[in-house]
Amino acid sequence: MKRALGVCYYPEHWPEAQWAQDAARMRDLGLSWVRIGEFAWSRIEPRPGRLNFGWLDRAVACLGGAGLQVVLGTPTATPPRWMLERHPDMLAHDAQGRPRGFGSRRHYCFSHDGYRKEAVRITRILAERYGENPHVAAWQTDNEYGCHDTTRSYSPAARQGFRDWLRRKYGEVEELNQAWGNVFWSMDYADFDDIGLPNLTVTEPNPAHLLDFHRFSSDQVVAFNRAQAEVLRACSPAPLIHNYMGRITDFDHHEVAADLDIAAWDSYPLGFLSDRLEAEPEHKARFLRQGDPDFQAFHHDLYRGMGRRGWWVMEQQPGPVNWAPYNPAPLPGMVRLWSWEAFAHGAQAVCYFRWRQAPFAQEQMHAGLRRPDDAPSPAWEEVQALAKEIAGLDEVEATAAPAALIFDYRSAWAWEVQPQGTDFDYFRLCFAFYRAMRRVGLSIDILPPDCDNLSAYRMVAAPGLATLRPELAAALEAFEGSALLGPRFNAKTANMAIPATLPPALDWLNCRVAQVESLPPGSRIPLAEGGAFVHWFEHLEGDARVMERDSQDRPAVVAAGKRRYLGGWPDEEALARMLRDLCTAEGIETLELPDGLRLRDCGGYRFAFNYAPEPVRWGDLSLPPAGVHWQKRPG
Amino acid sequence: MKRALGVCYYPEHWPEAQWAQDAARMRDLGLSWVRIGEFAWSRIEPRPGRLNFGWLDRAVACLGGAGLQVVLGTPTATPPRWMLERHPDMLAHDAQGRPRGFGSRRHYCFSHDGYRKEAVRITRILAERYGENPHVAAWQTDNEYGCHDTTRSYSPAARQGFRDWLRRKYGEVEELNQAWGNVFWSMDYADFDDIGLPNLTVTEPNPAHLLDFHRFSSDQVVAFNRAQAEVLRACSPAPLIHNYMGRITDFDHHEVAADLDIAAWDSYPLGFLSDRLEAEPEHKARFLRQGDPDFQAFHHDLYRGMGRRGWWVMEQQPGPVNWAPYNPAPLPGMVRLWSWEAFAHGAQAVCYFRWRQAPFAQEQMHAGLRRPDDAPSPAWEEVQALAKEIAGLDEVEATAAPAALIFDYRSAWAWEVQPQGTDFDYFRLCFAFYRAMRRVGLSIDILPPDCDNLSAYRMVAAPGLATLRPELAAALEAFEGSALLGPRFNAKTANMAIPATLPPALDWLNCRVAQVESLPPGSRIPLAEGGAFVHWFEHLEGDARVMERDSQDRPAVVAAGKRRYLGGWPDEEALARMLRDLCTAEGIETLELPDGLRLRDCGGYRFAFNYAPEPVRWGDLSLPPAGVHWQKRPG
Amino acid sequence: MKRALGVCYYPEHWPEAQWAQDAARMRDLGLSWVRIGEFAWSRIEPRPGRLNFGWLDRAVACLGGAGLQVVLGTPTATPPRWMLERHPDMLAHDAQGRPRGFGSRRHYCFSHDGYRKEAVRITRILAERYGENPHVAAWQTDNEYGCHDTTRSYSPAARQGFRDWLRRKYGEVEELNQAWGNVFWSMDYADFDDIGLPNLTVTEPNPAHLLDFHRFSSDQVVAFNRAQAEVLRACSPAPLIHNYMGRITDFDHHEVAADLDIAAWDSYPLGFLSDRLEAEPEHKARFLRQGDPDFQAFHHDLYRGMGRRGWWVMEQQPGPVNWAPYNPAPLPGMVRLWSWEAFAHGAQAVCYFRWRQAPFAQEQMHAGLRRPDDAPSPAWEEVQALAKEIAGLDEVEATAAPAALIFDYRSAWAWEVQPQGTDFDYFRLCFAFYRAMRRVGLSIDILPPDCDNLSAYRMVAAPGLATLRPELAAALEAFEGSALLGPRFNAKTANMAIPATLPPALDWLNCRVAQVESLPPGSRIPLAEGGAFVHWFEHLEGDARVMERDSQDRPAVVAAGKRRYLGGWPDEEALARMLRDLCTAEGIETLELPDGLRLRDCGGYRFAFNYAPEPVRWGDLSLPPAGVHWQKRPG
Repeated sequence: MKRALGVCYYPEHWPEAQWAQDAARMRDLGLSWVRIGEFAWSRIEPRPGRLNFGWLDRAVACLGGAGLQVVLGTPTATPPRWMLERHPDMLAHDAQGRPRGFGSRRHYCFSHDGYRKEAVRITRILAERYGENPHVAAWQTDNEYGCHDTTRSYSPAARQGFRDWLRRKYGEVEELNQAWGNVFWSMDYADFDDIGLPNLTVTEPNPAHLLDFHRFSSDQVVAFNRAQAEVLRACSPAPLIHNYMGRITDFDHHEVAADLDIAAWDSYPLGFLSDRLEAEPEHKARFLRQGDPDFQAFHHDLYRGMGRRGWWVMEQQPGPVNWAPYNPAPLPGMVRLWSWEAFAHGAQAVCYFRWRQAPFAQEQMHAGLRRPDDAPSPAWEEVQALAKEIAGLDEVEATAAPAALIFDYRSAWAWEVQPQGTDFDYFRLCFAFYRAMRRVGLSIDILPPDCDNLSAYRMVAAPGLATLRPELAAALEAFEGSALLGPRFNAKTANMAIPATLPPALDWLNCRVAQVESLPPGSRIPLAEGGAFVHWFEHLEGDARVMERDSQDRPAVVAAGKRRYLGGWPDEEALARMLRDLCTAEGIETLELPDGLRLRDCGGYRFAFNYAPEPVRWGDLSLPPAGVHWQKRPG
Repeated sequence: MKRALGVCYYPEHWPEAQWAQDAARMRDLGLSWVRIGEFAWSRIEPRPGRLNFGWLDRAVACLGGAGLQVVLGTPTATPPRWMLERHPDMLAHDAQGRPRGFGSRRHYCFSHDGYRKEAVRITRILAERYGENPHVAAWQTDNEYGCHDTTRSYSPAARQGFRDWLRRKYGEVEELNQAWGNVFWSMDYADFDDIGLPNLTVTEPNPAHLLDFHRFSSDQVVAFNRAQAEVLRACSPAPLIHNYMGRITDFDHHEVAADLDIAAWDSYPLGFLSDRLEAEPEHKARFLRQGDPDFQAFHHDLYRGMGRRGWWVMEQQPGPVNWAPYNPAPLPGMVRLWSWEAFAHGAQAVCYFRWRQAPFAQEQMHAGLRRPDDAPSPAWEEVQALAKEIAGLDEVEATAAPAALIFDYRSAWAWEVQPQGTDFDYFRLCFAFYRAMRRVGLSIDILPPDCDNLSAYRMVAAPGLATLRPELAAALEAFEGSALLGPRFNAKTANMAIPATLPPALDWLNCRVAQVESLPPGSRIPLAEGGAFVHWFEHLEGDARVMERDSQDRPAVVAAGKRRYLGGWPDEEALARMLRDLCTAEGIETLELPDGLRLRDCGGYRFAFNYAPEPVRWGDLSLPPAGVHWQKRPG
Repeated sequence: MKRALGVCYYPEHWPEAQWAQDAARMRDLGLSWVRIGEFAWSRIEPRPGRLNFGWLDRAVACLGGAGLQVVLGTPTATPPRWMLERHPDMLAHDAQGRPRGFGSRRHYCFSHDGYRKEAVRITRILAERYGENPHVAAWQTDNEYGCHDTTRSYSPAARQGFRDWLRRKYGEVEELNQAWGNVFWSMDYADFDDIGLPNLTVTEPNPAHLLDFHRFSSDQVVAFNRAQAEVLRACSPAPLIHNYMGRITDFDHHEVAADLDIAAWDSYPLGFLSDRLEAEPEHKARFLRQGDPDFQAFHHDLYRGMGRRGWWVMEQQPGPVNWAPYNPAPLPGMVRLWSWEAFAHGAQAVCYFRWRQAPFAQEQMHAGLRRPDDAPSPAWEEVQALAKEIAGLDEVEATAAPAALIFDYRSAWAWEVQPQGTDFDYFRLCFAFYRAMRRVGLSIDILPPDCDNLSAYRMVAAPGLATLRPELAAALEAFEGSALLGPRFNAKTANMAIPATLPPALDWLNCRVAQVESLPPGSRIPLAEGGAFVHWFEHLEGDARVMERDSQDRPAVVAAGKRRYLGGWPDEEALARMLRDLCTAEGIETLELPDGLRLRDCGGYRFAFNYAPEPVRWGDLSLPPAGVHWQKRPG
């Protein structure tokens, strides 16, 4: 495992005279990567076809000349204003039917052919110019697909694209009518061109209609990215990267990643805590300046699982950001901790966003490594120290964790389409499992839903997996470890219907979900052995062995051998108990960690991180707030 | 009182081979009614004018042959997709001005003439084909008028309809200017065609404008329904039914009901508790699996009052539903209890929605009497037992209750237009009175606002009746029992203005509302004799006899003889006290019932229902959760 | 200081036969002013060009004849329906892009040239007819600019106006690109006509784009008003007035006021408490019937500061209103108290809205001095007593208060554009300072941000002043008293960028804001000397003298001489402490006032007001609820 540091830089924002000093300082700080270009279309092509590469050539040369490796971004997330003259209908439409206009970024519809061709065109121009450039050591496609809720568009282009997609998928409209169950409410279609987008219906649209729209929307992202990837591959040997975001589930990241080499993500621990996490106010207050102790780790493991040739943090928060509801500053030491947490999960590179805080435009309140007055920001010294630390530690190879969690974007869509209870959210469910696993000390791999081999693991969890795919079904049958499946496991067919024999519809498990209940906040189904089900409860029937019962003696967890099915959403207490039981059975060590302490085993090392705002002690280990510790693992 | 059970069935959803067994099982279960057809337009007329009645003929024959009586629905709530080709402008528009598109149901504007003609056309085709069919024993018009907020449309068709309606109502635009007070803010119109719909104005529109729009919108529902009713009457002797919903006040159900024979409603106690009831979280938690103890009873009494030849529950919740924010399962026994509560209020039939849970489309998570795998659901046994019980009990005739409540849809519109305090809601006010009456043990009749004879009652309440109509005014003057009027009784003229002599503007009561106050949550006006006014307080003046005062010695309740006027919205304590006082004065027995126990007297029987999640004792009576008890009343 | 009372009257609402009696009663009550006409366009010009002045001539004559002075309003806030035939595109559009239709008031876009010409036309007609009329003693332009969120329009007319405004401001589009930092996210424009309005962008637009749009929108209000003012000045010697509202910051009131003579505002203490004030529920409950003890005073001082020839309360709440979420009645005595509070702040006139409650249209539930049945309302007697009181008190001249607060509309826009923390609001911040100053007994002047002389004051506060203008910068440098600046003082350049040397960028203060934090509710930065920073915290660096530190020993308040810079938003405790310290240093008396008691020194008098719902004692003074007291100040 080679560990490197980098930074995001915008030469177009600064006087050219400043570049050389900036580059030299980057090197001196210990950085080896610099990402540039991903928002610079208007400076590369100020007028249609009028290319202006002088500055970019010089910037690449300057940075490369200082010894930095360049990640060059395709600038397709920010089409210039003139693009709208050429393609007035290229804008995405929101679910209310309104065009989402020019004036910020990501103002394009993934389904607009004209714009997709323009994106390929500019990508080809860049690829041809820099594909063999020795300093351009990697490419980034676009920027943060899906950010600002941009995956799904309700534009005329999207409608046409959707109809074409459906035509390809179903061939005959009668097939679609059957698959969707359009006999219900007289929704039958006579032609694919009669089908609308599933927004602005009187009451909820057919869930199969919605699910197909979500699949289509994801496919459009995949196709948009693939078009760029093909051009870049043809011109350049450098690896291809995309920088994903946190908790975006609108498109299938696994499918996008299959066309790229490196999976990267943009890690903003404080912003995400404020903006994207269900948690009690006490939890948010406690971790205000440290970020949630599991949110970053979850995404590290998720993206490690999809990076074909590695994974990065492309944008690491280095101080207060500008975009969350509230924007505190990190506790001193957290920038280092966050970076180490990424390396402990196997990151090849951690890049900070951004080099220097820009005093103008939308992100002027977003911290960088340097301040607008070019003085170093508080993160500077932490990165400086970190650069020395990572140089001093062995390179290690991440090996399989003992435990795995299946994460499936399609399940996120399925339960978004049909939560059945207002607060049933797939990410939230998976994250609850992930957090519980991590709190008992486990290192975790996150696997895709078409995973066909689980033999590396001793325990695997698959909460809320809506539709079991054949590959995983086979892998599960062959699996010799312990599995924790459910709730809502295999509860829907691929057409978003209930399986004929009722969920979970597993040959090897004599169990049927006879009835389900979604539960309002505060309502719980106590379990006989402690803890409770919350949010969700299933009435199970059948002859499967009952492993746990609820306080009314109803089956709560059933099993076939070491594969257990969970008839509800366990609360923290119940989940911890169940995980400890399984681990004990599998001979996996579990730990009692103080609140805020997290561990991660990687290669031959065990890392420890203190996210708590106070010092923690655990056995011999004593860590201050933001403290990081590592040691070789015994044997 | 003949009591019958039935079910809603969708032959078009299931293989024809399954129909005969389904029909036989319905009979065996003890059902005698089966409703079909109301969403089947796309299967009856797959292409414009291409009728396909084979399957429906066979379905009617099959069900009828098994001894079931068929309720045949007109399918006008679900116009097929091709209808939009013929009438592209038939869609309703929401208050934001957006068309409400195809893809679910109820996608039509009541004011669209073209669609109304199509609705009459398909109704005539059905009526002519099945009007004399011996198995078709009743008709249902459309389905759940007003559901999904569909009464009010802001489409061009609605605008034209509104202008025509105003022209008919006012004759001259100057009359309208006078009636609305358009001199205010220079709102005068020169022509009816200048008048717009009252949405998207800069600040609130003229309340008279809004009220007329609400009246118009209701009238359009009445006219739409009447057009179908006339066709059906011309072709069939069978009674006409519509299935209303719970807590929908957008259109005047009394007026629709006047064109039909039987008033039915769709009773979803758990869905309504979650979705349509203001109540403390504790109340909602306590009755999570039983439903509110008064919500169903209120609607039973409401619809009994408008069914010219009886009333039904057309759709009774038989298990978890799919559409409420949270969807728990009923406590065992509740399906039986809910059904008995309906019969105790005089229902002729209770039909369950639906026979078999469909595994596809929007309502796939809505329970039926049978599961998607065709096994019986938990409700099955309760219905089985119930069928035997109702067969064993005498037929009884519902007689007038001792107490009556006036319920007036126009008042709901008036206070929606001008609540004056954010949380002032007419249904909520009436329901508070209803609940209080029921908690002291009363059986209640709900009467329309043009009721012209109150002589059957000893007590009548009319909270919030915005405009007193002459019939009721006369009936009140002649009334010999006790009346509880107000707050906001007769507070508006028919033109939504303040009466010249100030409310309540009653010849026989020397009382004027000099000033009103709406009160935020937590603010209360304590009453000298206990309890308080909440939400609303009126400063009363005049020489009327003061029956109660507030803690500052201001008049709170005044009276002329036995007719009392309430100058505020009493809280539970105050309302209970006032009702007990009136009952005592009238010699009506009041009771101290444990929490969750409710009674209903019907014919010669007294029924008792335990809605509490724990057993209750009351005198000699002991009832488990979901328990039902009945006995002949003495005398 | 001449003190007068008046009333708003709508002769067009009442039979002409009633006018004379109304006028006589106004005189008898002690009123001397009557405002009329501001919503009467449809009666003045019922059809385009068809003028009907008979009634208005007679109304002016009748009122004037009774000895009243008339304020005549231009009726431009309520263009008649026919205006839309002439100018179909005159409507403002909301931020969602929807036209804001006819049917209430203020349905025009400030940027629509055609409508602006119509407004000038009707103003000229009125000015020419009544400019020399002896009874017309003042003019009101339009009504409540900005009310109902009408300052900012997103119409095509506004877009064109904005482009023209930008062209005038920047000359070359490249200047604009530079100023806005459009290199960021490739937002460069090639032409002013490419620039859109900043609504409906994918994510937030450029803050400089937004800020310019806010400035433009304000300028349009100023220009609209100026066009009327010029016409009126040309025809009439009478002073010009506009009636502003409470807590509207969308346009620069100082700039509008510069074209007028008298600044008036519409004071609705109970409505504003319910609708426009962040406060704990306990505070709102305590002052439910009295209004916030500082809200009115703040606006009195604000508008006094901009009235070139005085200031008025044009509409004083006389009882419950109709438009707030909840509308209680004032505590007896409050109408008098509110009126006295205005006079104590130097008001020349207090006019009540309205004479008689209209029984029809939107404001039928808005109290007047007389009820709809023409009986006097509860306010009547209070006004009667008040008229005698003010006649009995000396005329006094308001003199400069010891303390001043800077209030700057542009800063409100800056922090609206970029709050950085969800709940950071400029008005709220300034109001917190104002309240704290008043609670220690200070009388306060509110000054504009281009104030060039502070020598009258001993203490000045400027919280959140986004951009320091040269005039004030010079005044501050010359200031010999104590100044309390910050947080976020001079934190932005005029182009909404961060100053190159970091805020506060003051030559005389060696202090840089190195980093800022916005804090969620409940999060606080304790200060070493008591109290805490909330909402906002700045990391300060530099050599400036540290006056206070936080509990982690970081600089919290720094100073250069007597000018202090605050690195955060102090809570109530901290602010009170800081103010007392400064006052002590300046020899300004501070007081310990009981909760609800407020003082105001004016001329030679000290006034005391009890806003508490219970009696208060303070030294020798004892005041009942709603009590007012005044006495000559010693020497």
